Amino acid sequence: METPKKIKIALLGVGTVGTGVYKILSGQKDEMINKIGAQLEIVKILVRDAQKERKGIPGKLLTDSFQEIMDDPEIQIVIEVMGGLEPARTYILEAFRHGKHVVSANKDLIAEDGKELFETAQKYGKDFLFEAAVAGGIPIIRPLKQCLAGNNLTEVMGIVNGTTNFILTKMTENGMDFADALKMAQELGYAEADPTADIEGLDAGRKMAIMASSAFNTRVTFQDVYTEGITKISADDIRYAKEMGCDIKLLGVAKNTPDGIEVRVHPMLIPSNHALASVRDSFNAVFVHGDAVGDTMFYGRGAGELPTGSAVVGDVIDVARNILHSCNGRIGCTCYKNIPIKKMEEICNSYFLRIQVFNRPGVLANIAAVFGNNQVSIAQIVQKKAVKDCAELVVITDAVREKNIRDSVTVLEGMSIIKEISSIIRVYNPEE
Amino acid sequence: METPKKIKIALLGVGTVGTGVYKILSGQKDEMINKIGAQLEIVKILVRDAQKERKGIPGKLLTDSFQEIMDDPEIQIVIEVMGGLEPARTYILEAFRHGKHVVSANKDLIAEDGKELFETAQKYGKDFLFEAAVAGGIPIIRPLKQCLAGNNLTEVMGIVNGTTNFILTKMTENGMDFADALKMAQELGYAEADPTADIEGLDAGRKMAIMASSAFNTRVTFQDVYTEGITKISADDIRYAKEMGCDIKLLGVAKNTPDGIEVRVHPMLIPSNHALASVRDSFNAVFVHGDAVGDTMFYGRGAGELPTGSAVVGDVIDVARNILHSCNGRIGCTCYKNIPIKKMEEICNSYFLRIQVFNRPGVLANIAAVFGNNQVSIAQIVQKKAVKDCAELVVITDAVREKNIRDSVTVLEGMSIIKEISSIIRVYNPEE
Repeated sequence: METPKKIKIALLGVGTVGTGVYKILSGQKDEMINKIGAQLEIVKILVRDAQKERKGIPGKLLTDSFQEIMDDPEIQIVIEVMGGLEPARTYILEAFRHGKHVVSANKDLIAEDGKELFETAQKYGKDFLFEAAVAGGIPIIRPLKQCLAGNNLTEVMGIVNGTTNFILTKMTENGMDFADALKMAQELGYAEADPTADIEGLDAGRKMAIMASSAFNTRVTFQDVYTEGITKISADDIRYAKEMGCDIKLLGVAKNTPDGIEVRVHPMLIPSNHALASVRDSFNAVFVHGDAVGDTMFYGRGAGELPTGSAVVGDVIDVARNILHSCNGRIGCTCYKNIPIKKMEEICNSYFLRIQVFNRPGVLANIAAVFGNNQVSIAQIVQKKAVKDCAELVVITDAVREKNIRDSVTVLEGMSIIKEISSIIRVYNPEE
Repeated sequence: METPKKIKIALLGVGTVGTGVYKILSGQKDEMINKIGAQLEIVKILVRDAQKERKGIPGKLLTDSFQEIMDDPEIQIVIEVMGGLEPARTYILEAFRHGKHVVSANKDLIAEDGKELFETAQKYGKDFLFEAAVAGGIPIIRPLKQCLAGNNLTEVMGIVNGTTNFILTKMTENGMDFADALKMAQELGYAEADPTADIEGLDAGRKMAIMASSAFNTRVTFQDVYTEGITKISADDIRYAKEMGCDIKLLGVAKNTPDGIEVRVHPMLIPSNHALASVRDSFNAVFVHGDAVGDTMFYGRGAGELPTGSAVVGDVIDVARNILHSCNGRIGCTCYKNIPIKKMEEICNSYFLRIQVFNRPGVLANIAAVFGNNQVSIAQIVQKKAVKDCAELVVITDAVREKNIRDSVTVLEGMSIIKEISSIIRVYNPEE
């Protein structure tokens, strides 16, 4: 019997995702011979401390020398699962220069320096794949760049951060407040000790930048994404949303409009019968609209050792197939356009505003006049409760430019009849 | 400026899907130069009557000679969207022999003769892609064969026939009976004049055979699939299901179990909070479970000119990229195993039975004894209504082998206290 071909791989980092990748590739070792015609073997793992024992990882694979991996001509694929900007960026660029293909799960880096990474990969004729950087195990980059490539894709909208979706689910279903739900998420390991990147929408923003780039064929970086987190969402907001038949979700929204690209992450009221409203706990889902395919949705686990490992291994298999068929670089950077990014001020939404007012005659008329003067049309206004001399108003506007809302709010905040503007949350409006 | 490369394509058939493909490729003509580095141009279209005018299709492209397409060495890709077994099968095999790559949307043919088609493609080193054969525009074959290739996939379950899902949605939401809902589906163009393939589950069965083959790496043909349609589902069944927190859907279920492969299509009670229960009207959705990725779901339009055209064009782009990188045949047949198929009698389910009985003392005890004698454990039994001397019983069983239910029913049907067994519907049980 012929000895099966072997493709040698190095892993940079062996945290949660790296461990998942190692487990999956070890478990599928024999299967791969039949599946793709070669064995895939991790032969070196870069760690900071090569002496430290790691459960399930053979110590002999560990090295603290990146150069040792670069100098091994038999290593054809490098999997970068260290995260962070540096030294990951330098290592990936070096890997290309040493003739190695790279699979990365690093959303921070790709959302920041994607252009340089892809250009370097192309220069050296190497593969650079990154399915795991967005929405964990859910296949989404390959669908955007391949399956739906016949479409003019106009919208990508999704729940792409499991931590915040878990927190909002607990607030909605169990009536928890934000702080308690966050604490629970931390105890269960869904949120990190420093949860900033998740709860402020930064993590979701990076994923939206990457998906927008793949979907619209134009480079969108993290700096282009407007981000707003969920820390200000209150139990009252969620309750009022429910009364109006809506749920509050942290949504990433990317649109390719005739005036440019919109990319943003913020909480949003979405009708409870919309498919994204039923995405619970730490699950992720991405909704894609194309001119030919219409609406599609992709759902699954957006994080975790094995789900994210599954996406990395899918990419490794693709690189291996390219190696076996001598066609590396078959699909490189697909950002061949240069579409301008719209300013957040110019983007249109409906808005939900919760306002505390002093209960005096003419208050409603005064507030309505401010909106009117700023061309904001009110769809609905409800007085929710009055305590002593204060009342709570909920205002829903028709779709209007963000700038007009901001101008209205600036005026309202200066008025003596207004005690506080408690919430300003955008409302999903399919006809926007 | 360099003249862009041109890849020439022939279309076999220009019905609904063919027209969609023509529209998409024409609309994306210039885009493709940047997207993939070549123009994609349909240069010939095979039709029965080349004189007949077709709206939006230039008459000069039409030909009634298949041989003319085979004899044109410049045509590299053949898109088969004729449907049916013959002459599609002969044409595809001939196309491979003439050195052409094939993209097909033909589920009937692939579910029947997939093996021969893939072997012939491989023999001639040609691509054979078929994303459009399953679930229209929803990317599913590429996710199964590529994105999730690192998984041991154990389950594929889906709503893969839009016609029956539309009918069941109307029966559930508008209280229509089957005949009226079918008539409405026909009037709206969702059902054909002869609806047999849809309503009897044959169309869904073909798609399940194809998906099971791709997911489990073993050849599953249409003959291996147990199929049962929705013609016997009544308004009463749907109402009782609702009372139990369930919807009735026509589900395709494929599982890779230690005892072999299960593949079947039949109506099923599914909890109303399951993601598949919220798939309405003519939409499709496919749920996939893998050991690494966990649960994932893919949702979208399962039919129609442009959605199915989108899937075909995605495949054409993949073939074109293979041509440009000289790596055709990069992903061929992935059925390298030979796993046995389980008999339907051996498959376990919970069951919902609706039984009309004569209202006599001891009836319940007698019925319970029959189930007990056949090792069928009853989870729930409810007397729904009694009219004159008749009563209606609804029985829900625990999970049990199909054979035991069939044996029980045979005995029950012979008993004088039983007037009729009105319904036997399987119940989705995630712990099966």
